[in-house]
Amino acid sequence: MAQTTPNHTQTVSGWAAHDSSGTITPHVFKRRENGKSDVTIEILYCGICHTDIHHVKNDWGITMYPVVPGHEITGLITKVGSDVSKFKIGDRVGVGCLAASCLKCDFCKQEEENYCDEIQLTYNGIFWDGSITYGGYSKMLVADHRFVVKVPDSLPMDAAAPLLCAGITVYSPFKDHNLLESPGKRIGIVGLGGLGHVAIKFGKAFGHHVTVISTSPSKEKEAKERLGADDFIISTDPEQMKSKFRTLDFILDTVSAHHSLGPTLELLKKKGTLMLVGAPDKPLDLPAFPMIFGKRSVEGSMTGSMKETQEMLDVCAKHNIRCDIEVVKTDQINEALDRLARNDVKYRFVIDIAGKP
Amino acid sequence: MAQTTPNHTQTVSGWAAHDSSGTITPHVFKRRENGKSDVTIEILYCGICHTDIHHVKNDWGITMYPVVPGHEITGLITKVGSDVSKFKIGDRVGVGCLAASCLKCDFCKQEEENYCDEIQLTYNGIFWDGSITYGGYSKMLVADHRFVVKVPDSLPMDAAAPLLCAGITVYSPFKDHNLLESPGKRIGIVGLGGLGHVAIKFGKAFGHHVTVISTSPSKEKEAKERLGADDFIISTDPEQMKSKFRTLDFILDTVSAHHSLGPTLELLKKKGTLMLVGAPDKPLDLPAFPMIFGKRSVEGSMTGSMKETQEMLDVCAKHNIRCDIEVVKTDQINEALDRLARNDVKYRFVIDIAGKP
Repeated sequence: MAQTTPNHTQTVSGWAAHDSSGTITPHVFKRRENGKSDVTIEILYCGICHTDIHHVKNDWGITMYPVVPGHEITGLITKVGSDVSKFKIGDRVGVGCLAASCLKCDFCKQEEENYCDEIQLTYNGIFWDGSITYGGYSKMLVADHRFVVKVPDSLPMDAAAPLLCAGITVYSPFKDHNLLESPGKRIGIVGLGGLGHVAIKFGKAFGHHVTVISTSPSKEKEAKERLGADDFIISTDPEQMKSKFRTLDFILDTVSAHHSLGPTLELLKKKGTLMLVGAPDKPLDLPAFPMIFGKRSVEGSMTGSMKETQEMLDVCAKHNIRCDIEVVKTDQINEALDRLARNDVKYRFVIDIAGKP
Repeated sequence: MAQTTPNHTQTVSGWAAHDSSGTITPHVFKRRENGKSDVTIEILYCGICHTDIHHVKNDWGITMYPVVPGHEITGLITKVGSDVSKFKIGDRVGVGCLAASCLKCDFCKQEEENYCDEIQLTYNGIFWDGSITYGGYSKMLVADHRFVVKVPDSLPMDAAAPLLCAGITVYSPFKDHNLLESPGKRIGIVGLGGLGHVAIKFGKAFGHHVTVISTSPSKEKEAKERLGADDFIISTDPEQMKSKFRTLDFILDTVSAHHSLGPTLELLKKKGTLMLVGAPDKPLDLPAFPMIFGKRSVEGSMTGSMKETQEMLDVCAKHNIRCDIEVVKTDQINEALDRLARNDVKYRFVIDIAGKP
């Protein structure tokens, strides 16, 4: 365990949940010395992902307390291991969901280490040395350089932080389905939250027609006027849904609450794809008929590779894409988690970890 | 309606259900005269598909009574329209699920008319002339020649009949996923019934390693020894399922009863595909985690095009693939439907419509 691993000698201030109440309190813990392949990062900002709520409350029964959440991390390099040539002290960098992978399997060799069977996550994972990983709700992070990306100069560090999870999670499916260089497709985005709002921006940047499918009529104006969506329909209004039957090429479903995929599938053209990137606890309802009659696909996608993550940040710099955020102080984390659980955020909380003026 | 369409002057003996009891009784009805594009077929055999049960009992609320079921039809051409050059009197032919499509849309133009928005089915559909279609539980059929295929001489007409639905339904996904010419993949077949048993034969003919996933331990011996499956696991046995975790490239799910896709998805390698060809009434349970972590796909597939159907029959002739059938007489249809509902058939009932000695 981390606490007893011999080279875990660096004392770090952070914020952790200690039980399934999920309450976050200041927490001092140890991190490993900066190894040959490591870089040490002074954390500036950390986004609050919906996954953090599940982990602090042990919703999935896999939380190892105390848990220091956070996998949307931006910061500055303060130390560089002797085997690391890619980074230098002062570099603006980001760390997302991945802390380690086997580096040997076909996925790792093909730069798809996010699908490696042995991936370990940035928090609540087990690192190569057997220690439990602690995330970005903390002042400092030691990370293997292979799981660190550069943040382009033009991206602000606070609004870039959620790109490391929310951004790459929606970028990867666009890339995977050749939607970066083939404008003019009709794209649906289900759910307008942390993931959905970035997905709109990618969709528009890549030249597509974007329809938002939401349960909240109140979001229409903003979705269209500020985020640039072309269309907005209410998923609970059968007439509005019917008006879009069989019109969309590709739908990204970002909703992490339980729902039926049936009405959404009907919006897809034949041979269209519904991509799941939200992770509801309970199984989704999948009716067979719209799948079979429309030869439709439902696919899953899990974050992105490190190569894709770097590419995504560069694309964001090029297209001036960033997350819409609400910055909170470290003593507001519990309040932010509560508000996030009620979807009361536009569209991502980011913790100002360093608290610099 | 068929009965009042002017040129529906041919009297035909058949077997129909008249209400949701689903009981089949002899039924005399009218078919259209043989048009310019039509062929008339003396029906020899008609397979009993699970879909027939749903239709006769109006399980889906769409049945137009009286319904003459049957879409796995083989027979002999007795009349040929003036615009038809492909067939001649005496030809051995087959008719499957499709009676008509728009012939104009992109799907029709690309010989994928099975996905045309205006397809009409061989029974319980509405033909171009506004008449209700009646299926193969009858002595004679008038069909547009574009929806008729030739049955190769080497295939017996009785064992060929179910290929027109069960066969093409499982063949099309194999073709669609490039599994015809790329041997050595690890294929799973969920459910060993009318569709599943043909799928095993295709899988082996195309050089794959085939694992049957079933709820019935009693089927193991036959699946392996007679049908040629390489492996057989019980889906309700967690240990057996675990032994196959992440080993399969492609799974064909032929089960039309409600079930969760979760355990099956776990058998797939990352990026593997689960193909749905069964059609349960109620939505399937689709857990998000195995989809997301494994970047897996669930896809639907609906029968096949006419071109694929002809190709499939030719492939069956080449590889000596046919359905394992139990032939029943026309006065045994109700009994056969009852037994099929209890999965008490190896593996497809075929009605001897002509009753020739």
